[in-house]
Amino acid sequence: MKGMARKQRGETVKKFINGPETLEADIIRGLALSKPGLLRQLPDCNVLVRQTLKRRDKVSLLFGCGSGHEPAPGGYVGYGMLDAAVPGKIFSSPTPDKILKGIKEVQTEAGVLCLIVNYTGDVLNFRMAMEMAKMEGIAVESVIVADDVATQKGKSVGQRGLAGVVLVMKIAGAEAEMGTDLYGVKEVAKWAASGLRSVGVACRPCIIPSDGEPSFELGEMEMEIGMGIHGEPGVMRCDMMNARDTARQMLELILLDCNYENSEVVVLINGLGGTPIMELYVINEFVHQYLAEQGIVIYDTMIGNYMTSMEMGGFSISLMRVDPHLKALYDAAAVTPVIRR
Amino acid sequence: MKGMARKQRGETVKKFINGPETLEADIIRGLALSKPGLLRQLPDCNVLVRQTLKRRDKVSLLFGCGSGHEPAPGGYVGYGMLDAAVPGKIFSSPTPDKILKGIKEVQTEAGVLCLIVNYTGDVLNFRMAMEMAKMEGIAVESVIVADDVATQKGKSVGQRGLAGVVLVMKIAGAEAEMGTDLYGVKEVAKWAASGLRSVGVACRPCIIPSDGEPSFELGEMEMEIGMGIHGEPGVMRCDMMNARDTARQMLELILLDCNYENSEVVVLINGLGGTPIMELYVINEFVHQYLAEQGIVIYDTMIGNYMTSMEMGGFSISLMRVDPHLKALYDAAAVTPVIRR
Repeated sequence: MKGMARKQRGETVKKFINGPETLEADIIRGLALSKPGLLRQLPDCNVLVRQTLKRRDKVSLLFGCGSGHEPAPGGYVGYGMLDAAVPGKIFSSPTPDKILKGIKEVQTEAGVLCLIVNYTGDVLNFRMAMEMAKMEGIAVESVIVADDVATQKGKSVGQRGLAGVVLVMKIAGAEAEMGTDLYGVKEVAKWAASGLRSVGVACRPCIIPSDGEPSFELGEMEMEIGMGIHGEPGVMRCDMMNARDTARQMLELILLDCNYENSEVVVLINGLGGTPIMELYVINEFVHQYLAEQGIVIYDTMIGNYMTSMEMGGFSISLMRVDPHLKALYDAAAVTPVIRR
Repeated sequence: MKGMARKQRGETVKKFINGPETLEADIIRGLALSKPGLLRQLPDCNVLVRQTLKRRDKVSLLFGCGSGHEPAPGGYVGYGMLDAAVPGKIFSSPTPDKILKGIKEVQTEAGVLCLIVNYTGDVLNFRMAMEMAKMEGIAVESVIVADDVATQKGKSVGQRGLAGVVLVMKIAGAEAEMGTDLYGVKEVAKWAASGLRSVGVACRPCIIPSDGEPSFELGEMEMEIGMGIHGEPGVMRCDMMNARDTARQMLELILLDCNYENSEVVVLINGLGGTPIMELYVINEFVHQYLAEQGIVIYDTMIGNYMTSMEMGGFSISLMRVDPHLKALYDAAAVTPVIRR
C-alpha cells in the first residue's frame, strides 16, 4: 500500500499514519518524544510512566484504555495526575500483562490505584492484572468510572465510561500528591465519580485503521444521542438538531439521572476528534444558559479534545459535582502534556 | 431549516451550531462563559479582552483573525499572552472598527502591539485601524507574521501566516509582562518571527457554514502539501502519503527556506480541526527522528489543535528557533484558556 488512502464501502480512509501494524507504538513514541521531561516509555512495551522519581510514600495512579482515544491515556501522565498510562490496541482494552507491567513499574510502599472505564473487557483485564499484582505482594485497588447516563439501565454491565474519567484522574492524582493513603485516594476518587455524569452524541463515524470500516453507520442527515466512544448504541437516533436542541436533550438526560439542584459543578465539553472546537464553544454557550436556569452553579468549564474516538464527529458533556475539597483538588497543581495548572 | 444538516454538492453539512447568522457571536459567548475569570466580552461586539485590570506601564498585545480558527484568537487571551482578541466573520479579517474598539479598550501608556497574520485583508484592515488609533493619540505598532514557506515566492503579498503566530503571541506576551517598552516588545516579536517557519498539509476540506460549500476540492485519494488555512493553493497535490513521507516532504520545504543547522527549535504540530490527535503524535515521532538526523535540537514540542480551519483534515508543522532569551519567554508563566505554564 503506497499511502494511507484506501477506498472501502464508498468511504475514503485518509489517515496520516504509517500503517495499522505499528500504529499503537508510533502513537506512544510520538507522545513520549514530545515531553521527555515528563514521560518515559517502558522498554519493549507501549506503557508510559512518569519521568520523575517515585516518592515511596505516594500512592501511584494508573489508567489504561484502548488506543484511539488520544490524548488519553498518555497525555495525562505527570505531576498531579497519572503515574502510568497503559494503552491497548485501537478501541481494545490493554492486556493484563501490560497492565501488570505498568503496576509493577510504578508500585510504591503506598500502593497503586487503577482507574477503569466501565467496559467489560477493561474490567476483566484489570481484574486479572490486579490479581497477579496482589500475588506478588503489591497493594493495588481500583475505582470503576461509569459516567454515561445513556446506557440502558438494568443491563448487568452497568453504565459505560465516557470522558468524565479525565476529571477523576485530576481529583485522584491531586489527592495522591498530598500523601493520602491508598484507601483515602480510592475514597476520594469514588466520591468524585459518584457525582459525575456524562452523555455523548455522534454525527460521523471514525474509520477503524486495520480494516478501513466505519465504526458505525448513520444516515446522511442523522445523529445519535447517547452513543458510546466506540460507537455503542445510544438512546435516540434522529435528524441533525441545532446546537441548542442537541445540548438540551443531552442535559435533560443527565439531570434525569442525577439531581444537581443547588450544586456546584465542573463542566467538561469534550470533542470526539472530528468536531471543531468552534462547535464546542457554541454548545457551551447554551450549557451555561440552561444550567443557570436550573439553579446549577458552574465552578469551572473545560472545553477541548480530552478523550476522543479518532476522527469521530460529535462530543460529550460531563458534569461533576464539586464540594470545597474536590474544588481544591481540581485546582491543585498538575504538569502533564495536556493539563497544566 | 430544522437542524444543521443540509445536503450540498453531495456533501452533508453536519454542524452543531445554531445557524450561520449568530455563529460568530455564539462562539465568543461560549468561550467567554468558559473562563469568566480570564476573559470579558466587550458589550455589543465580539471582541474579547482580559478580565484582569490593566497595568498602565505594560504594553498591550492584540491579535485578530477570522473566526473558524478556534481556539484562536480568543483562547490565547490572559496573563502572559494576549490582552485582546478580535475575531472576524468566518475566514474573514476583522473589520477596522472592531480592531479599533479592541485597541482602545486595552490601550495603556505603554502602547499597543498588534500581531497580524500575513493575509491581504488582515494587513489592510489592521493598517486602517492603527491609523485611526494613532489619530486618537494611541501609540500602536504591529508585527506581521508570515511563516508559511509554501507560498510562492515572488508574489507581492509575500508568505502567508499559519499556526506559528501562536508561538509569537507567547513570546511577545511574556516580554510585555516584563514591562519592556513598545519597541522592545516589537523587536522581540520580530526576532521570534524571523526564525519561524511553517508548512501545512490538507486532505479534507471544511464546509463554510453560510453556504454549505467545501473550502476546496480534493480527489478521493488526494492530499495537498502547502495548503493555507483557508484552503489557499499549496505547492504539491499528490496521492495520500503515509505519515513519515508526508512529514519528510514538509520538513524538507521548511529546511530549504531556513537554515536551522546547529539551532535549537520549538516544534509546533498543529491539527487543523478534523485530524485526530493520534495522527499528530504519529507525525511527531518522525519529526523528532528527522530533525535529530539533521543535527537540529528540539527544545520543546507542542502538539494539539491550536489554530484550526473548522473540521478541515490536515495539520501544520512549525519550527521556531530559540536562543536563551526566547527560551525564557517561551517558558514564562501564562494563564489563558488554552495555554498554561
